[in-house]
Amino acid sequence: MTTVREVAYQVLHDLGMTMVFGNPGSTELPFLRDLPSDFSYVLALHERTAVGMGLGYAMARGRAAFVNLHSIASVGNGLSGLVDAHYCHAPLVVTTGQQDRRHILAEPFLASRAVEVVKPYVKWAYEPLRAEDVPAAIARGFHLAMQPPMGPVFISIPMDDWTHECQPLHVREVHQTTLPDHAALDVVVRALNSSQNTALVAGSQIEEDGGWHEVIALAEHLSADVYQQPLASRWTFPRTHPLFRGGLLPAQQPLTNQLAGHDLVVVLGAPVFLYYAYVPGDAIAPGTKLFQITNSPNEAASALAGTSIVGNAAAA
Amino acid sequence: MTTVREVAYQVLHDLGMTMVFGNPGSTELPFLRDLPSDFSYVLALHERTAVGMGLGYAMARGRAAFVNLHSIASVGNGLSGLVDAHYCHAPLVVTTGQQDRRHILAEPFLASRAVEVVKPYVKWAYEPLRAEDVPAAIARGFHLAMQPPMGPVFISIPMDDWTHECQPLHVREVHQTTLPDHAALDVVVRALNSSQNTALVAGSQIEEDGGWHEVIALAEHLSADVYQQPLASRWTFPRTHPLFRGGLLPAQQPLTNQLAGHDLVVVLGAPVFLYYAYVPGDAIAPGTKLFQITNSPNEAASALAGTSIVGNAAAA
Amino acid sequence: MTTVREVAYQVLHDLGMTMVFGNPGSTELPFLRDLPSDFSYVLALHERTAVGMGLGYAMARGRAAFVNLHSIASVGNGLSGLVDAHYCHAPLVVTTGQQDRRHILAEPFLASRAVEVVKPYVKWAYEPLRAEDVPAAIARGFHLAMQPPMGPVFISIPMDDWTHECQPLHVREVHQTTLPDHAALDVVVRALNSSQNTALVAGSQIEEDGGWHEVIALAEHLSADVYQQPLASRWTFPRTHPLFRGGLLPAQQPLTNQLAGHDLVVVLGAPVFLYYAYVPGDAIAPGTKLFQITNSPNEAASALAGTSIVGNAAAA
Amino acid sequence: MTTVREVAYQVLHDLGMTMVFGNPGSTELPFLRDLPSDFSYVLALHERTAVGMGLGYAMARGRAAFVNLHSIASVGNGLSGLVDAHYCHAPLVVTTGQQDRRHILAEPFLASRAVEVVKPYVKWAYEPLRAEDVPAAIARGFHLAMQPPMGPVFISIPMDDWTHECQPLHVREVHQTTLPDHAALDVVVRALNSSQNTALVAGSQIEEDGGWHEVIALAEHLSADVYQQPLASRWTFPRTHPLFRGGLLPAQQPLTNQLAGHDLVVVLGAPVFLYYAYVPGDAIAPGTKLFQITNSPNEAASALAGTSIVGNAAAA
Repeated sequence: MTTVREVAYQVLHDLGMTMVFGNPGSTELPFLRDLPSDFSYVLALHERTAVGMGLGYAMARGRAAFVNLHSIASVGNGLSGLVDAHYCHAPLVVTTGQQDRRHILAEPFLASRAVEVVKPYVKWAYEPLRAEDVPAAIARGFHLAMQPPMGPVFISIPMDDWTHECQPLHVREVHQTTLPDHAALDVVVRALNSSQNTALVAGSQIEEDGGWHEVIALAEHLSADVYQQPLASRWTFPRTHPLFRGGLLPAQQPLTNQLAGHDLVVVLGAPVFLYYAYVPGDAIAPGTKLFQITNSPNEAASALAGTSIVGNAAAA
Repeated sequence: MTTVREVAYQVLHDLGMTMVFGNPGSTELPFLRDLPSDFSYVLALHERTAVGMGLGYAMARGRAAFVNLHSIASVGNGLSGLVDAHYCHAPLVVTTGQQDRRHILAEPFLASRAVEVVKPYVKWAYEPLRAEDVPAAIARGFHLAMQPPMGPVFISIPMDDWTHECQPLHVREVHQTTLPDHAALDVVVRALNSSQNTALVAGSQIEEDGGWHEVIALAEHLSADVYQQPLASRWTFPRTHPLFRGGLLPAQQPLTNQLAGHDLVVVLGAPVFLYYAYVPGDAIAPGTKLFQITNSPNEAASALAGTSIVGNAAAA
Repeated sequence: MTTVREVAYQVLHDLGMTMVFGNPGSTELPFLRDLPSDFSYVLALHERTAVGMGLGYAMARGRAAFVNLHSIASVGNGLSGLVDAHYCHAPLVVTTGQQDRRHILAEPFLASRAVEVVKPYVKWAYEPLRAEDVPAAIARGFHLAMQPPMGPVFISIPMDDWTHECQPLHVREVHQTTLPDHAALDVVVRALNSSQNTALVAGSQIEEDGGWHEVIALAEHLSADVYQQPLASRWTFPRTHPLFRGGLLPAQQPLTNQLAGHDLVVVLGAPVFLYYAYVPGDAIAPGTKLFQITNSPNEAASALAGTSIVGNAAAA
Repeated sequence: MTTVREVAYQVLHDLGMTMVFGNPGSTELPFLRDLPSDFSYVLALHERTAVGMGLGYAMARGRAAFVNLHSIASVGNGLSGLVDAHYCHAPLVVTTGQQDRRHILAEPFLASRAVEVVKPYVKWAYEPLRAEDVPAAIARGFHLAMQPPMGPVFISIPMDDWTHECQPLHVREVHQTTLPDHAALDVVVRALNSSQNTALVAGSQIEEDGGWHEVIALAEHLSADVYQQPLASRWTFPRTHPLFRGGLLPAQQPLTNQLAGHDLVVVLGAPVFLYYAYVPGDAIAPGTKLFQITNSPNEAASALAGTSIVGNAAAA
């Protein structure tokens, strides 16, 4: 007989998530006993640290990391890490132990409503309706986390599920990269060709999309001034590069002033724009053309100005 | 002075949503008075019909339609239409009137919690924090509705917002189409080349992605058998075409039996697979290769078998 | 072996819910086959009618009625009935069939997110984590629905749960009536004793609390003018009684004008006040004392003016 | 002109919430500047500590305490304190600063979805639709927090709301205590009179309901054995009292064994029962009568066994 626990470890292994970042409690123990020898458990002294390590590991590898938290208290303690992962597009598969499925209707101690709590900041929050669904839920979570824009998913797992019988699960392949529309990119190319004074805005998604070198090459090809998006959550552009003009300010009028001399602004992999203080003004100076290329449909829809194009920034 | 109402009508006009499908009540009247002459109001006798007409109109045009419902009761009556739009990827911008913002804290009659109710079936549900945000919320909703996979969005608008002063709003352009990864498509091409007996599964997203002719051409080029996805919500493939083999059954084992003779199955624009009755079995026969090309990241992540590729199906 | 279905029918029987109002689909059939002979099924041609009949039956009996709907579309069609039950405090136990638990992770046709949809308008929305929990969930739902303020609860039940083995369940007794604080009522009595011109406002909760005769007796004892709350959802006070002064208007200033001659207003079993149009003004004229006795903690907390007392209105 | 800030401080003062526990960030500064001299600000170095101090202060005074947190990260850090307040029935009014209302639609940095996050653990989560509603929302939150069962409420306040013009607000009085039904208590009295060997279970709500002395007197009058509920979150009964028999175990069969010798068990102010480990068994030994008196309608409805009575435990 194969158990949920055995299949889940096989799935984690096949998905490349053999590093477990966590801070466990009683509801996680049935999962963690007999950790397979090819897995490493990185114990954090506080849940925020566990999520933070997972987040850094995911960003460094460009691949979802696995984090195991404890019930609802631990989700709260680690929540700011999920918020970070949401905003910096870090792929995380986060699980917590739920109380025993067999007495959850009795509202026992450590029963958790974590699935509801995390919803606004994860791509998927789920508690399986059957023990046998746990490994497939982890696999689906991985694929969702890896979709651009990448981000965290959350699965709550009743602590008695791990010993249930379970069919083996074959891990699937999902190709997630999507390319921008050629016709839309042609419009940007024409605008670049007719621009006298282009500014590129380098955003955090460049790192996520694997476009570091492509953006440098583009900037050098155009001899364009390069600015960093306001409040960037990842590396965007080399600071010492002769074309680098520094970071944009996170407020409407000051930012517009910074870009005022340019007749064309192309934002690569960032929202238009991330503000902090409310300083009313134009989002972009009248007369300046603005294009945005982003992997985030939400950021394309919510941009305050300009023409938006959805797709991998590295393909520009 | 320009009002929210005037700017909203300008935005609706610029986005091509001059046809209003609705069934109004008191909370919608401040919006509907003095309907501009280039707008048409299609009055339904029941809210489900209003949403249904909007859904058909959106599908026929491939462009978001505008539906105006009344408070929470009307949202309930029209909810099954939102559910349909969710599953068939029909772009809808649905608004309802909320009670007067100035006494909503007093829990007046017709105060609505519609935003919470519709959340599981819309891409965005929003009630603006300021009257001045109404036109921009409609524009953002339009862009979100049009993103593949297309679908409904929902905005609840306090009935006193329409007479507030408001800045004009320039409608932006957002290019939504995303193309599948070339490297991933190459794998499919290689599989097609080495296949002896390919089956194509034609799904509802072909119509959404504008790929009707491309799929016919592909099928004829390959001389492949073509099946329709189970429970298709849109037109998929001509029924009288000599390569058409009929619809797939919505249950695991029967469907697998239908496809058993093929060594390769390529699903174009559909989930893998949409089931109805639970008849346990394999999702696909062992030994049969399965690829899925879908515009829905969720359906790519939740497929039970095969390799998934995210992007516009017409580009295959 | 006892099944979930058998235990559920026993529980429904013991709770006095042998009348089933419904409009079934495929996901409800495993529950409805072999309906016990002491049960009656009232078939509605539309889900709104099924909920409406259940609502009337519950109000007439002062006891929770049982309504069985179909998946999410049916919940939408009946949603306005749940909204009514929420506002008129009608105890309803509403169930729907969910898809088969064994393939819900595959997102099959008729998979339902009804639990999320109804949340804003029910006291409890639940989908059991185990088949064996269905009967106990129905019993808990009944007890919650019957708590003052009474209202609807909602349970989503996977269609394969009914044939599972299940332990018998003994139905418990829960005494729900709570009485207002004596010290608080003493303050009202002192205010009544020193008032020259008292107005009573008769609200819908009088019927819910079983206080029809008590309120008439109180009005006659005080010789007080009696008004009906704005937009009452139930019977409040005999229309032909010589002390009856008609209904209050659902807007701030007009309503305040109606009560302007009174030095004391005692609201029995109603919010203070339910408005419709926004007509700014005082909630009560300066100098008029206002007391509210309500079974609804929410309405006590959200009242715009006066002193609120929580408890059964019949006990005043 | 009176501002929202001035009226809010007046309301906080009138409600007795002049102690502010917090850990502020930029979004809270417009509220905190010029703190009135009769207010004290208790600065915590971590948000969990701020909530924890507020929780202790509220429990010690039996009155809602005011806690001011920072945006979403801070809500996460303090969430475990809200969970504690939920389970131990501690009345808290928790506010956080939201981003500036005027650019929230632009999704600025520090925009917060805290209202959604905290919902499962608070009695009310709200973000006012108008700046002018902030003081009234605080007052309503206070009244809701103080209702038995007491608990936390949450209000998110856009940082630009504090300087808006605002009408003064008169703080209302709400009497929250509700008494159990006399007829239901009579049944308990009769059971006590005919019992040979009664056990009392002393729960955390005794402290909340102000019934410490009454429960001691009852136990001595009956000469009944007194047990403490499993995992009590407050003081329940003096440990050195000769009738005290220790704490109950948080698991079904062990707990039932502890109470096996009693023919009658009366639970005062606690769930029946709070379990931790799942050890299947009877909730109470067959033949033992069980009564529960609780201020929590939810705990009355979800009890696994016995007859439940809702109302203030001190009134027994």
